[in-house]
Amino acid sequence: MSSESEEQQLSKKAAKKEAAKLEKARRRQEAASLASSTSSLSVEEDPYSSNYGDVPLLELKSCSQADAGDWSRSVASMNWTEVGALTPEMKETEVLIRGRAQTIRPVGKNMAFLVVREKGFTVQCLATAQSDGVSRQMVKFVAGLNRESIVDVIGIVSIPDVPIKGATQQELYCVNKATPNLPINIEDAARSDAEIENALQSGVQLPRVNQDTRLNYRVLDFRTPANQGIFRIQCEVATIFRQFLLSENFVEIHTPKLIAGSSEGGSAVFKLDYKGQPACLAQSPQLHKQMSICGDFGRVFEIGPVFRAEDSYTHRHLCEFTGLDVEMEIKKHYSEVMDIVDRLFVTMFDSLNERCSKELEAVGRQYPFEPLKYKPKTLRLTFEEGFQMLKDSGVEVDPLGDLNTEAERKLGQLVLEKYGTEFYILHRYPLAVRPFYTMPCYDDPLYSNSFDVFIRGEEIISGAQRVHVPDYLAERAQACGIDVNTISMYIDSFRYGAPPHGGFGVGLERVVMLFCALGNIRKTSLFPRDPQRIAP
Amino acid sequence: MSSESEEQQLSKKAAKKEAAKLEKARRRQEAASLASSTSSLSVEEDPYSSNYGDVPLLELKSCSQADAGDWSRSVASMNWTEVGALTPEMKETEVLIRGRAQTIRPVGKNMAFLVVREKGFTVQCLATAQSDGVSRQMVKFVAGLNRESIVDVIGIVSIPDVPIKGATQQELYCVNKATPNLPINIEDAARSDAEIENALQSGVQLPRVNQDTRLNYRVLDFRTPANQGIFRIQCEVATIFRQFLLSENFVEIHTPKLIAGSSEGGSAVFKLDYKGQPACLAQSPQLHKQMSICGDFGRVFEIGPVFRAEDSYTHRHLCEFTGLDVEMEIKKHYSEVMDIVDRLFVTMFDSLNERCSKELEAVGRQYPFEPLKYKPKTLRLTFEEGFQMLKDSGVEVDPLGDLNTEAERKLGQLVLEKYGTEFYILHRYPLAVRPFYTMPCYDDPLYSNSFDVFIRGEEIISGAQRVHVPDYLAERAQACGIDVNTISMYIDSFRYGAPPHGGFGVGLERVVMLFCALGNIRKTSLFPRDPQRIAP
Repeated sequence: MSSESEEQQLSKKAAKKEAAKLEKARRRQEAASLASSTSSLSVEEDPYSSNYGDVPLLELKSCSQADAGDWSRSVASMNWTEVGALTPEMKETEVLIRGRAQTIRPVGKNMAFLVVREKGFTVQCLATAQSDGVSRQMVKFVAGLNRESIVDVIGIVSIPDVPIKGATQQELYCVNKATPNLPINIEDAARSDAEIENALQSGVQLPRVNQDTRLNYRVLDFRTPANQGIFRIQCEVATIFRQFLLSENFVEIHTPKLIAGSSEGGSAVFKLDYKGQPACLAQSPQLHKQMSICGDFGRVFEIGPVFRAEDSYTHRHLCEFTGLDVEMEIKKHYSEVMDIVDRLFVTMFDSLNERCSKELEAVGRQYPFEPLKYKPKTLRLTFEEGFQMLKDSGVEVDPLGDLNTEAERKLGQLVLEKYGTEFYILHRYPLAVRPFYTMPCYDDPLYSNSFDVFIRGEEIISGAQRVHVPDYLAERAQACGIDVNTISMYIDSFRYGAPPHGGFGVGLERVVMLFCALGNIRKTSLFPRDPQRIAP
Repeated sequence: MSSESEEQQLSKKAAKKEAAKLEKARRRQEAASLASSTSSLSVEEDPYSSNYGDVPLLELKSCSQADAGDWSRSVASMNWTEVGALTPEMKETEVLIRGRAQTIRPVGKNMAFLVVREKGFTVQCLATAQSDGVSRQMVKFVAGLNRESIVDVIGIVSIPDVPIKGATQQELYCVNKATPNLPINIEDAARSDAEIENALQSGVQLPRVNQDTRLNYRVLDFRTPANQGIFRIQCEVATIFRQFLLSENFVEIHTPKLIAGSSEGGSAVFKLDYKGQPACLAQSPQLHKQMSICGDFGRVFEIGPVFRAEDSYTHRHLCEFTGLDVEMEIKKHYSEVMDIVDRLFVTMFDSLNERCSKELEAVGRQYPFEPLKYKPKTLRLTFEEGFQMLKDSGVEVDPLGDLNTEAERKLGQLVLEKYGTEFYILHRYPLAVRPFYTMPCYDDPLYSNSFDVFIRGEEIISGAQRVHVPDYLAERAQACGIDVNTISMYIDSFRYGAPPHGGFGVGLERVVMLFCALGNIRKTSLFPRDPQRIAP
């Protein structure tokens, strides 16, 4: 039994050979499986029949009873070892593992190789008839397993000198059978574009699993090493976000997603009936996080779903995503908010690189990317400086308008060339392109105390100081053409003494997408929702 | 300037006197405020006029410029000290604080007391005319402040020998004015029932703020020390929940709240139109957390909103609450899930008592409660044992039915008497009262591998092993009268090899409510949603 991440064994050069081999192996296995089911070996005649078999449902309901079956007795006194935790030090010891039958290769009638995968880690098991406790019938049972079935294996750890060679298996139980016809093969789903291209040049056409098929069978798609990595990285992003903010005296809040009216106006809102009242789903926790500041919590953050009924079918928009939202009192200047963004994200990138190296490697193996370039102290440019850089390079943009996606990308390139960073803050945006509650600049009301943050040329964070004086807020709303009556509750929240404050919002899926340069937000959302998809 | 939580100063005996005094002070202040606005003192003639005043909006947009006003210059070189962080060691030093003008008491024309509150902590400031830099005009300005306005105060810390005496103030700026007519007075909102009763016995009728008024003006209600405590405790519950599970190799996930069809059936679901398709809001992350287990994440958890369109108007039901959900692979027995519940909640209770002692005290001052009684190792009783205890005490319940709220309370009492704990697990529930996807017991299909957990006689957690074999799951659904076609996506998720697994769900608001014995879930939800309320 040799433990290592199978992917680590594969150099890029070996990849295409391996891919072709896997295809053949699969066909061989399917044939063998068919053959074995029609062969004449009888389990009844096997003296070792208690060492393998399907675990009955009754046992799976509980194996704590002494009168349960073979599997129950075998596992009663053993603990499971994780496949990823198998080490050379365990050589010659007996272990129990649970995982999926990833690939099965019968070799004649006396031998079967079985690769067992658990959470993206694999180990190769070998069953040889005539060795202790292993019969030809057991080899047949192994050869006949459906891929992706859950199996328990008891075996002796061996560390082969040459990879994929030697290993012994003593008992094997099928805990839960998978259907024989899988809509996606994990090997296919785990393959990089480069592997497919390389194989094609050798005349081998390997299957490519497209994004829609992946999402339709997400349960299978999740099992690739890249996806195991992506969602563990996502978990780490949220963990670091929280840890950092808690250490800075922020309080985590949970604001309602069901609200009367629409949170920021506009048509991109999901409407519903709430006990006879018109209601909608919150497009952001903006109102309620500001109310929490008015309620003296000082500094708050929230991690929760955000709903946008937008029709945008792009690589970066979803109808539901996970918002990371922050709001805080400002003592003097909106740079206090940018300071939090700066330290929070530098801490996050440092921690990801340190704590998720295995996961980042797994992602990179299927979707190669360059590590993000960022500085220990984040670069801050004013909008006017950014405008000038674009102008100097020949790109015409409106000095008091917003940047479109193309201009943002271009500016990202220019910043990378000039400052060597792919992560920077652009602040003092033109007032006209920000929401009405954005505080104008003290020295020039054409600009505002606001900022956007970019990763790899894409906007990822939007933040600002808010107007905290109710009469001025109403004035700003009116100036922006908003009917003040429709937002009276919002404005009234500031009448009971509101401290100066500001905040920002980030999409969790975008952070992971851009940190790993994944190019499509559907890759970093567990069960993505876009205008065309609401399942599974 | 004396720093201490004002509430700590109040012994219960002194409380009613204080309450009556506050009422008088408020009336006095309102009179003084009126008087000062019509008096003839002129700011123009005041040589110290730069030491106080309203901070203009322009300065609040930024004070980083040298040409800004009085406030800007004063705070330019100083850092703010939190009111809660003021200590006797700071005696005689100059500090800058920001907080709310909680109570203002002019004494003649030369003196004004001002209690400044920040995050539930208070400090008393004294402005005396003729002392350095303080004029009668400044005293007038202080006396005329609206309560709950945000102020910056620069002063010298003094630690008086007798509480509420002595303190000096040098500068005071009003950062943001509150409206003069507050719908709720914080002192009223912070008062305990006992204080009101005591005052009544002395013939003083103090205002009582009812729950609906509190919720209508939640921004003011949040400012009471009890509410400051409640939502910091809530934050800590979620923090411990995450920390514990992450340390046990769980992965945090974010499942969609917008789903096609209804998650667990029934009518208690919010329906909406999703781009022309019928959709609804998830009543639990049940399906998607199980799919994540089928996707090999091994152990997952989620903290997120849960939507129930129920008509229940009780002390413990909300239409939207924060669900703490867990799902995990089971190796052998559903007790593995109960082990996690046991260790997670004992860790949580220990940590809350240790890390939130100030907050628990603040809550207890307004809403007195006994600390929760629990054991280092959580008591587990089978449903049959619970049934027998009820029967022995003369309570008739259906041996294969569910316990109603009354029976649950009674059992809680019996368990407390017999075992000395208010936190216990009741498992092996009758199969008939659990959802169709619950795994039956191996030895008696009338019972199931499921459990509920109780705090102070109320159910707080529901959990179980799930059926992971697709054909058997379909069989169970049919037996429960469910049309299998409507849940085919759910059942199909298990066809690609599902490991045995189980999990549980908890409501965050209920944990806080029952840990602090608060009696109404609206007290522990930031912005509660019930059949009659969708605002603010």
